[in-house]
Amino acid sequence: MTALLLIDIQQGLQEMEFYGTERSNPDAEANCQKILYAFRKRKWPIFHVQHCSTNPESPLHPSKKGNAFHPSAKPLEHEPIIQKNVNSAFIGTDLEARLKSQNITDLIIVGLTVEHCISTSVRMAANLGFKVTLVSDATAAFDKIGVDGKTYGADIIHNTALANLKDEFAHVTNTTTLLKELVD
Amino acid sequence: MTALLLIDIQQGLQEMEFYGTERSNPDAEANCQKILYAFRKRKWPIFHVQHCSTNPESPLHPSKKGNAFHPSAKPLEHEPIIQKNVNSAFIGTDLEARLKSQNITDLIIVGLTVEHCISTSVRMAANLGFKVTLVSDATAAFDKIGVDGKTYGADIIHNTALANLKDEFAHVTNTTTLLKELVD
Repeated sequence: MTALLLIDIQQGLQEMEFYGTERSNPDAEANCQKILYAFRKRKWPIFHVQHCSTNPESPLHPSKKGNAFHPSAKPLEHEPIIQKNVNSAFIGTDLEARLKSQNITDLIIVGLTVEHCISTSVRMAANLGFKVTLVSDATAAFDKIGVDGKTYGADIIHNTALANLKDEFAHVTNTTTLLKELVD
Repeated sequence: MTALLLIDIQQGLQEMEFYGTERSNPDAEANCQKILYAFRKRKWPIFHVQHCSTNPESPLHPSKKGNAFHPSAKPLEHEPIIQKNVNSAFIGTDLEARLKSQNITDLIIVGLTVEHCISTSVRMAANLGFKVTLVSDATAAFDKIGVDGKTYGADIIHNTALANLKDEFAHVTNTTTLLKELVD
């Protein structure tokens, strides 16, 4: 059985000044929403992962309004919410046990950010034995300053993160292709 | 207490045709060896992680000579070897339990490859609560073909992988600085 894992689609990740100077893929949240609606329509399992930072300065700290889900991915009352406080959705949570108890073997993963929490959760999901599909345009990256002092733009961070995950950890597809496959 | 984790420094990772068309940082193994010798000299804990691929075609499959440790990082008889068959050194192994039973809180991580097993193990180590130092020139990357069909060279894969880990998951230093700190 296949589940949808929506990771950290929260209002705080709109606060650019905390995360970087530019973000890739402005369509990420809209694409996440399309995939969420497709799963809801089919009544397939959905898990919302919410980052609850332990850093009081973080926009994702539970005391901040940024901790709330983004409107594109607001959970319905019966949809489970997994709260985490590290990058991996599998550490300090019962996510693995929940997935296994529901015979979920395959995961479609979407959300933010591709270089931090998505990469960490995809890597760990794959290494735990789940068959992972990552949706390339239902995620986004922020720019980074390298160890060499050079700035790496949001697009190169996005594209290299996907290149590192592809085949080794996940099948990488895009929203249009995934939705077509879900309908067929 | 601080331990050195040497990940996948094995002969098979010299087989270019299996992993890519170019590799960053030819000095990786020599730098790993310098750090290994410094730890041995101080009698600080050392863990050798050995990838035992389940893919019979992989140079790291136990049936292949490439599964053997690279001469630069050959374990001494009393040094523990952790065998794994996924990217993370913490999945399917007793590494976390061993580190905790020895009151190890800090990890210096070196080895191959920065974009696959190093990134996965660094991320998971940090999320499990270890304080991680990654040595930027005691690791190496292979080039990758992106989801967009574009080739990303070994250096950009190396540098963006480090940029993603820096501060979020690990303190990133280099061999010269680390060795100086170990001597001081």
